[in-house]
Amino acid sequence: MRFDHLGIATRDADTLADLFGSLLDASVVHGERFDGLDVTFLDLGNGYLELLEPLDGGGPIDRSLDRDGPGIHHVAFATTDVAGALETARDHGVELVDEEPRPGAWGHDVAFLHPQSTGGVLVEFVEHA
Amino acid sequence: MRFDHLGIATRDADTLADLFGSLLDASVVHGERFDGLDVTFLDLGNGYLELLEPLDGGGPIDRSLDRDGPGIHHVAFATTDVAGALETARDHGVELVDEEPRPGAWGHDVAFLHPQSTGGVLVEFVEHA
Repeated sequence: MRFDHLGIATRDADTLADLFGSLLDASVVHGERFDGLDVTFLDLGNGYLELLEPLDGGGPIDRSLDRDGPGIHHVAFATTDVAGALETARDHGVELVDEEPRPGAWGHDVAFLHPQSTGGVLVEFVEHA
Repeated sequence: MRFDHLGIATRDADTLADLFGSLLDASVVHGERFDGLDVTFLDLGNGYLELLEPLDGGGPIDRSLDRDGPGIHHVAFATTDVAGALETARDHGVELVDEEPRPGAWGHDVAFLHPQSTGGVLVEFVEHA
């Protein structure tokens, strides 16, 4: 399963997109409002950075920012079968955040694993439309 | 600049390598003891996971584990010119952890940027030998 993107929680996606764009010579390739977030994707050629800025309080990214400050939030791996990947995770005793694939940003199907089961790493499986 | 690897701090690299190997269908392609760490690379096809287990106390990964627990520690981007990438970062007012490239694991040249300058993300530039 290949690297797909790194999710980064921020209070200022525009400034961070400019900075990472300059540092990495990367371009913004997609932006949308999704699930209470301003979501911005920068293209790395072999994957993406996904900047996640809460539009208002109370959601999981907002809580993560309050608790831990800005920074890396999760890592996503690309698969053509999110449901199968969840089944494999379940077979290995991994606690799931999402029991089934659900719609994510950019029209993707996604599912998250619980970081307590995966060495403190919040893992997302993502299937591109 | 392309994604190179995700650095993950852990107290048990063997168990985590087995788990991620199963979840992601990824293989261990390199392991070494470097700079007080047991370092394990898993191949994702388009990059790597780098598991970092302290061999003893007192180093930065050990302190990170004590402070924040296990999980994602840094993200590394591949370049053919670490010194030039540092110069660009300096020009954008980014605080550097390493003023010059230094030897990293797996024979790479590496340099880190200070996360306070990069939205809380600990960024590494890496040049493969």
